[in-house]
Amino acid sequence: MVVIVGGGFGGLSAAIALRGAPVRILLLDRTNHHLFQPLLYQVATSQLSPADIAKPIRSILSAQENTTVSMSVVREIHPTTREVVTTGRRIKYDYLIVAGGARHSYFGKDEWEQFAPGLKSLHDAVDIRRRVLTAFEQAEKYEDAARRRSAMTFVIVGAGPTGVEMAGAISELAHTSLKSDFRRIDPTQTRVLLVEAGPRVLPTFTEDLSTSALRQLGKLDVEVLLNTRVTGMGERMVELNGEPLAAHTVIWAAGNVASPLAKQLGAETDRAGRVLVNQDLTIPGHPEVQAIGDMASVKNKKGNPVPGVAPAAMQMGRHAGRNILRQLRSEAPAPFWYKDKGSLATIGRHAGIADLRGVRFSGSPAWLAWALIHLFFLISFRNRVFVFFQWAWAYLTYGRGARLITEPPAKG
Amino acid sequence: MVVIVGGGFGGLSAAIALRGAPVRILLLDRTNHHLFQPLLYQVATSQLSPADIAKPIRSILSAQENTTVSMSVVREIHPTTREVVTTGRRIKYDYLIVAGGARHSYFGKDEWEQFAPGLKSLHDAVDIRRRVLTAFEQAEKYEDAARRRSAMTFVIVGAGPTGVEMAGAISELAHTSLKSDFRRIDPTQTRVLLVEAGPRVLPTFTEDLSTSALRQLGKLDVEVLLNTRVTGMGERMVELNGEPLAAHTVIWAAGNVASPLAKQLGAETDRAGRVLVNQDLTIPGHPEVQAIGDMASVKNKKGNPVPGVAPAAMQMGRHAGRNILRQLRSEAPAPFWYKDKGSLATIGRHAGIADLRGVRFSGSPAWLAWALIHLFFLISFRNRVFVFFQWAWAYLTYGRGARLITEPPAKG
Repeated sequence: MVVIVGGGFGGLSAAIALRGAPVRILLLDRTNHHLFQPLLYQVATSQLSPADIAKPIRSILSAQENTTVSMSVVREIHPTTREVVTTGRRIKYDYLIVAGGARHSYFGKDEWEQFAPGLKSLHDAVDIRRRVLTAFEQAEKYEDAARRRSAMTFVIVGAGPTGVEMAGAISELAHTSLKSDFRRIDPTQTRVLLVEAGPRVLPTFTEDLSTSALRQLGKLDVEVLLNTRVTGMGERMVELNGEPLAAHTVIWAAGNVASPLAKQLGAETDRAGRVLVNQDLTIPGHPEVQAIGDMASVKNKKGNPVPGVAPAAMQMGRHAGRNILRQLRSEAPAPFWYKDKGSLATIGRHAGIADLRGVRFSGSPAWLAWALIHLFFLISFRNRVFVFFQWAWAYLTYGRGARLITEPPAKG
Repeated sequence: MVVIVGGGFGGLSAAIALRGAPVRILLLDRTNHHLFQPLLYQVATSQLSPADIAKPIRSILSAQENTTVSMSVVREIHPTTREVVTTGRRIKYDYLIVAGGARHSYFGKDEWEQFAPGLKSLHDAVDIRRRVLTAFEQAEKYEDAARRRSAMTFVIVGAGPTGVEMAGAISELAHTSLKSDFRRIDPTQTRVLLVEAGPRVLPTFTEDLSTSALRQLGKLDVEVLLNTRVTGMGERMVELNGEPLAAHTVIWAAGNVASPLAKQLGAETDRAGRVLVNQDLTIPGHPEVQAIGDMASVKNKKGNPVPGVAPAAMQMGRHAGRNILRQLRSEAPAPFWYKDKGSLATIGRHAGIADLRGVRFSGSPAWLAWALIHLFFLISFRNRVFVFFQWAWAYLTYGRGARLITEPPAKG
């Protein structure tokens, strides 16, 4: 019995790599869907609907007869007795692949989460969408200019890819689709602040691409505050380098920490809580247990850490599945070497940066490359055609089809 | 100042009827979207996404310059002082149109709502979708046959149009798209019970059409229990005519009661809480106040009550708007006469009944008429093209694109 924990890019790729293998596979995930996470910010900013970027895991795997899918929350892992404990069940395994992903980290300030939600799940995205749209609805109602300004101020913390995408998309939402919908406020007066503790945006890219991204953000009216730390947070306010700023909406895109399942494996973890796996992705002392994706720390051939991105998780998943096939043939697991096919980040319509194996470009071409590659990866999704038409339509009309507040505000 | 309370079919039609009129209009709704309610059951059963059947009210009305939209909850109405009180604001009006709609009624057993949710809002639909999909996920996990059976038992209370649509759609979901997704359960063994206190289904139609609907429900494997009352309800159980039945999922489609705003108008109300309006839709003693849609009780030319359906609400809304134009010209409001263009109910793919001005038919033709008319009415929605393609695709593939559990279970 092979147990796979997590149905993200890593876990799903592992399951698919074991298609047709003479083993029973059980894939556990706390949700019922695989999520195309790179487009999650588009749900949060009303460009796409949840169903456009998610698909039930059991329908992806329905034709793979050796695999059972269960919507279950994994509570404990016991490598010594080879058991996984979910709410209500104990499951014995022969091989285990743990692909629990990452959550946002508030660097010890967990009380900030209520004020500044992060973006990892569909639930997060729908919640952020509600907050953003509700802020404009409130601004329209306020008589007081200061409160109106606060409602129209959006602070995004962290200038990694998610933060940059969110900042660009919110600014575009305000400047295009919302522009003529209000009577008392002018949405183009919206302030979008992108706050970064370090000296540049998108710091995993080269310096010239960072500089280009900064310029493109400026064109979209995003105010970028570099070398700026969040020092405090409260109800509708954030403190930047000690200075309070009134803002209804604060979004956290600043840090990641591995799933708490990493700690259960008994192996060493790094600062971000990721398991220090062997080069073959197994954990020390347990060749039958592999950890992959955002919760695993492994180095590439140059000795640099493998980044926490979807292509890396997919490569690791495929590798972990094949390692089990090797072990079934009584071979040793093989070392994993990450193949970096390049990085892309999008900033807004026609804006982005790209670094494809050293070929660096920015602006419209980078945006186009990003759009094509993301569409291509949606091929595992049945509704890629609809997503494509929806994108094309939104592109032509500057519309926002999914501009819905479907949930009542969360309590507290 | 014209204040319109509610952005459903009635309130929106009233606002549109006042386009270009020399008045300021304020439309208040507790949500940010107009909802195409006749297709709400398709969101609850994973056929459509929320964004396919809802559109922001302010974007529908963005070109209508005399109209302001505000997302606000109306708490009180004071006809004597001509004031509407929302959370945080008091608003003076010259003319008022109240179109607050209806909620489900539990006939005094409000504690049943937690066990058997009703279907009125997008939030309700997403909640019911979560419950239905989660029930199958749980059935797949249970070892015990009785618990598995309970998880795969769905009880729909009330055989009006919503109840019949829900029962048909859940049965189809189980028999088609879910069929091959599970390993331990056989979704075609799902029990769908449609419980009706009266002697026939769809009682507003003629007897022969009711009989046809009953036969078509049978073909879809829906068990219809006529003359059966719900006598009790609890956690994962329902009591039918005194007999307990274990069922994870119970859905309430049995009764409606007018919005509590009806009581605030100071006019007489009927058993269902609806305002007994004058024939011109004004309320007695207040020609400047009109009540319309599901919260108003008015008779047609034959002396029969106007039904609580979307076309009636739209006609009333248009009429109420024109009544205000008359009053602005110092004319008296005109009487409202409902034009019944017929009734349609759908039961499943290729199943339905229709009564179009006495021309009665059922089965595939009724379903086709239903589908065409509903698509036609979606013309006020920008995304009608996508909905059409989504339908066509789902029709061809028996797929369920929106089969997502996006929310954690509600507490309690």
